[in-house]
Amino acid sequence: MVVRAAVAGASGYAGGELLRLLLSHPQVEIGALTAHSNAGEPLGALQPHLRPLADRVLRPTTAEVLGGHDVVFLALPHGQSAAVAEQLGDEVLVVDMGADFRLADPADWEKFYGSPHAGTWPYGLPELPGARAALAGTKRIAVPGCYPTAVSLALFPAYAAALAEPEAVVVAASGTSGAGKAAKPHLLGSEVMGNMTPYGVGGVHRHTPEMIQNLGAAAGEPVSVSFTPTLAPMPRGILATCSAKAKPGVGAEQLRTAYEKAFADEPFVDLLPEGQWPSTAAVYGSNAVQIQVAHDEAAGRIIVISAIDNLAKGTAGGALQSMNIALGLPEDTGLSTIGVAP
Amino acid sequence: MVVRAAVAGASGYAGGELLRLLLSHPQVEIGALTAHSNAGEPLGALQPHLRPLADRVLRPTTAEVLGGHDVVFLALPHGQSAAVAEQLGDEVLVVDMGADFRLADPADWEKFYGSPHAGTWPYGLPELPGARAALAGTKRIAVPGCYPTAVSLALFPAYAAALAEPEAVVVAASGTSGAGKAAKPHLLGSEVMGNMTPYGVGGVHRHTPEMIQNLGAAAGEPVSVSFTPTLAPMPRGILATCSAKAKPGVGAEQLRTAYEKAFADEPFVDLLPEGQWPSTAAVYGSNAVQIQVAHDEAAGRIIVISAIDNLAKGTAGGALQSMNIALGLPEDTGLSTIGVAP
Amino acid sequence: MVVRAAVAGASGYAGGELLRLLLSHPQVEIGALTAHSNAGEPLGALQPHLRPLADRVLRPTTAEVLGGHDVVFLALPHGQSAAVAEQLGDEVLVVDMGADFRLADPADWEKFYGSPHAGTWPYGLPELPGARAALAGTKRIAVPGCYPTAVSLALFPAYAAALAEPEAVVVAASGTSGAGKAAKPHLLGSEVMGNMTPYGVGGVHRHTPEMIQNLGAAAGEPVSVSFTPTLAPMPRGILATCSAKAKPGVGAEQLRTAYEKAFADEPFVDLLPEGQWPSTAAVYGSNAVQIQVAHDEAAGRIIVISAIDNLAKGTAGGALQSMNIALGLPEDTGLSTIGVAP
Amino acid sequence: MVVRAAVAGASGYAGGELLRLLLSHPQVEIGALTAHSNAGEPLGALQPHLRPLADRVLRPTTAEVLGGHDVVFLALPHGQSAAVAEQLGDEVLVVDMGADFRLADPADWEKFYGSPHAGTWPYGLPELPGARAALAGTKRIAVPGCYPTAVSLALFPAYAAALAEPEAVVVAASGTSGAGKAAKPHLLGSEVMGNMTPYGVGGVHRHTPEMIQNLGAAAGEPVSVSFTPTLAPMPRGILATCSAKAKPGVGAEQLRTAYEKAFADEPFVDLLPEGQWPSTAAVYGSNAVQIQVAHDEAAGRIIVISAIDNLAKGTAGGALQSMNIALGLPEDTGLSTIGVAP
Repeated sequence: MVVRAAVAGASGYAGGELLRLLLSHPQVEIGALTAHSNAGEPLGALQPHLRPLADRVLRPTTAEVLGGHDVVFLALPHGQSAAVAEQLGDEVLVVDMGADFRLADPADWEKFYGSPHAGTWPYGLPELPGARAALAGTKRIAVPGCYPTAVSLALFPAYAAALAEPEAVVVAASGTSGAGKAAKPHLLGSEVMGNMTPYGVGGVHRHTPEMIQNLGAAAGEPVSVSFTPTLAPMPRGILATCSAKAKPGVGAEQLRTAYEKAFADEPFVDLLPEGQWPSTAAVYGSNAVQIQVAHDEAAGRIIVISAIDNLAKGTAGGALQSMNIALGLPEDTGLSTIGVAP
Repeated sequence: MVVRAAVAGASGYAGGELLRLLLSHPQVEIGALTAHSNAGEPLGALQPHLRPLADRVLRPTTAEVLGGHDVVFLALPHGQSAAVAEQLGDEVLVVDMGADFRLADPADWEKFYGSPHAGTWPYGLPELPGARAALAGTKRIAVPGCYPTAVSLALFPAYAAALAEPEAVVVAASGTSGAGKAAKPHLLGSEVMGNMTPYGVGGVHRHTPEMIQNLGAAAGEPVSVSFTPTLAPMPRGILATCSAKAKPGVGAEQLRTAYEKAFADEPFVDLLPEGQWPSTAAVYGSNAVQIQVAHDEAAGRIIVISAIDNLAKGTAGGALQSMNIALGLPEDTGLSTIGVAP
Repeated sequence: MVVRAAVAGASGYAGGELLRLLLSHPQVEIGALTAHSNAGEPLGALQPHLRPLADRVLRPTTAEVLGGHDVVFLALPHGQSAAVAEQLGDEVLVVDMGADFRLADPADWEKFYGSPHAGTWPYGLPELPGARAALAGTKRIAVPGCYPTAVSLALFPAYAAALAEPEAVVVAASGTSGAGKAAKPHLLGSEVMGNMTPYGVGGVHRHTPEMIQNLGAAAGEPVSVSFTPTLAPMPRGILATCSAKAKPGVGAEQLRTAYEKAFADEPFVDLLPEGQWPSTAAVYGSNAVQIQVAHDEAAGRIIVISAIDNLAKGTAGGALQSMNIALGLPEDTGLSTIGVAP
Repeated sequence: MVVRAAVAGASGYAGGELLRLLLSHPQVEIGALTAHSNAGEPLGALQPHLRPLADRVLRPTTAEVLGGHDVVFLALPHGQSAAVAEQLGDEVLVVDMGADFRLADPADWEKFYGSPHAGTWPYGLPELPGARAALAGTKRIAVPGCYPTAVSLALFPAYAAALAEPEAVVVAASGTSGAGKAAKPHLLGSEVMGNMTPYGVGGVHRHTPEMIQNLGAAAGEPVSVSFTPTLAPMPRGILATCSAKAKPGVGAEQLRTAYEKAFADEPFVDLLPEGQWPSTAAVYGSNAVQIQVAHDEAAGRIIVISAIDNLAKGTAGGALQSMNIALGLPEDTGLSTIGVAP
């Protein structure tokens, strides 16, 4: 089986990471690569690490260019995916790495994104309950946001097992690639090196409703999420520190058991041995998720910490994993759990 | 007035930062510098940035060497300060930059430090209610821990004004200098660059009871603190993300007002204009504290974020500020609020 | 004596560093601050580390705004200083932190900058032979480039003492602030962290003729310079590795002696003890220059390594040092040789 | 064909990187893993990024444990490989990632390493003239040093084509993993972040005679090398800036042609398009070498810049590439030219 794949938005970080992974996927043949302002340039000038594709010339993002592939990955600014997807037809697998089809509630969408709701597609976080069934054979995939990937995987087992009160507190640190490749002064190396700073504080970050949606589904009741993202001086990686009050009577052992059970058969989730803590370096460039749990008896809280590579499992790796499921390929085809460290 | 100061532990990061600041203090004359394993070496080989002291030779940490000064700063491993302080006599101002005299409750001390409790000295966080009065004229100062400095300043106004429920959740990122200068594999540059990782998770970090003590005093009732420290890829700085449920009826305006009032006359606390967020880079090398507050209405939580330089305001700067108060000098003598950025 | 100083270009890195230093200068009163696209904004939004000036509003860069000061610092794009200086009149001390008045040879200027030559002003590198005499009482100062500062200080003693053949090879690593605050994709944190890359290779960097001019003057004969700058993953600092063939018969001892003699009375140059090497961290935020020399007998070369802070001694500190000389103030007023480390 | 491989020194950075690569090699089955002080520990505690090997327990480095494999990789302190290799017998392919068998001249070895010379094995830098022939079928491989890899590849074409005078000047920046995993104070994250510093200056670095050996062989005459290594604030990567005077009459075109010819068929060497410069980020985690050349007409010098990943092509990748040749496998088996960026 040969899967011919096109990538819209190949000049950015998400597109570049996807291409890095696709180059190692044995079934994928890389087709059209498109961009907006960089159309006409060779990829080698923009993504010099993708040496085998250095001579490929970026084309404009049109349905004509993207047509004729088995899979089309969209790494576009939000609000643009629906129009492209429609033109591609129902036979093509469209994997949207943007936000457009993640939220089920139109009100949430409009509040956080300020534009009309486009709809909902099967959600590409296979580890969530029921997700694999929805992805199998689908022609449309909504890839989760990077933070919701880290946070949902960290907390859904606690909610699914009814161990945690429905008020989660999340503080996450992200590498700068999560902010994209657009040149903005506050993202200059001079500004970010040696610096930690928060942004989107107080419930206004766009990934918040996505976390609420996922955790609420796991809990079977509404869950509130207090989410504070911070920018860390590293190119990649998310470290999410997630906590919630433990339900009465819940202890460390029960917690550990629930997580062991939840992730027993997961190829990409690494519930670490007790005493070992997740680190973003250990998952650098890989599709792995490191998770560790703790019970703070004095504070009465469950603490769950997860580490992912925001570009890999958090975006492009997650997209590929879901594509594999949709196409009936082994889920880990072309995906590695080995980090590049130190 | 000339203040003759000795520094015990001059080879480490806390001692080095203190010397950097003392060199700019117009009243201080730097006397004996001591160390343990580095005794006999010139300071220039260990602290090459402290050029004016390059030829000073480190001496052993004994009462004899430290005697005859007006102020003695102790940057020693915990458990060692009491014996030294006793030998120095009651007329000398002893500023303990270690943990020995911070905790009032012997049980807390023994649980977290595993050794007999040495006592309690006036606590060197002048911004806390009542702290300045206790520091004025004292001959003994317990300098706070770096995390408790960042967290107590962030949250005490909310507790003092009865705006927050007594269950705080804190996630803080620290630069690596907070872990000291002892060579340990996990602190190697190769390990920490590009990496975020937690440690001391689940209520076991030694700074936890100190935060609980400070916030409980502000609240007038016991406050629990769920504290998760993380190691960030930067040499200096702490960014503390602190939150608690808002008491019923509390809103954004009330919150802002309480913080404006709490810090109106504080020379080192910078409650940022709305819309601007603390960053560790902005306080690099300075004694300033940047604070910003937010109210997450949907989650019902108050979020307060603070940034400090862990070595400056978090250790050596805080020590100097408290020394100034104890000696009756203007509180900001020799201390700057200007960061070194970018 | 009160010196009223204006700063044109206060929103950039050079302007910001100058303001950081001016705030500690006991004789300077900070007057008008101007900017181009940021005119109208409060400085606190652009330079959050300069807390005492947070409420100052940036004004447009016009002769009217800059008039009425004792000193005007220009941190402008090249080609703009001459027009401004002319309007300010001959009584005002104008310190140009740009390149316009550095090069004596119009042909060099035109070749490297592509615009008409504006002239030559006294050169603000006081440590060079004859420089202090030219600066004393002057009303016009051309502040050197950051790389020429590091390289000229490293090599002029070897050339002045006729120890080196007139063909220098220089490879220098610079922190990213040297590239300024304009948002360009290749300067994003995601691009520069974990990355070393050269630029301006092959003799095309604009600082090359300035080095040739300085070293040729010291040697009394033309000196060629092969200069390769590289961008290092740090916000500040230049490490310059400079070498030249030793003249016949020159050895290590002769070399050391020449450097000891050249820098014996220099307040800001730190010829390190043998066995200790310069590091950019040790001069972070300071006006100090660290230098070390070596003689590679097998290769027959003299190697001289210097470390400076590109924004401090390399730009704003050098400007202030030269201003002090021009105004007859002690040369080190408001300038520190203590680095902020670690 | 299944190749059973053992790794001695699996707890260090070189050993860890080798295992990362071996895990992707389709013919290799990973056998015994040994260590010195870490023997008895699970690999997961030391190399958490190597998830598939997390439960492997490290064994002591003895001939007994290493016996019975097809290939044994030695990542041992220098001076220890000869004894181990002897005990393994002549039928086993021994790949020494240490220095013991690199230098042909016993005097060089003794001068730089201070111990008796062990001999010379076929040199594992396949791109050098004649190297592949010597590696084919060999049972002993000496893997080059990381700096000599970067420098020899950069300069050998110029010397082989008689374009450069036999006096090379090299300044190279290395990531901290090149210094290994042993915990030393100057390698702490607090020390290296934000810092550039040289070491081994003046011809004393142990990699110098190796470069001289390689370049002399290419030139057919003795070549002197002035080599200055610097430590850069990044975990991985070497950027080598190499230059030499151009022989009379040599120009840019001739230079470019020589390099195009030298690397036309090299699978891992990427002579970049004109105008594009090597960066360590682009080869992060890959076996690729980026090279660019320039002719500085004014200075009369050839400048060649190369970028490699010191752990990959510079150590473990080079080892694997040479193993492939020795075993008659396609040279690029299990090796990627795609970097992990940003």
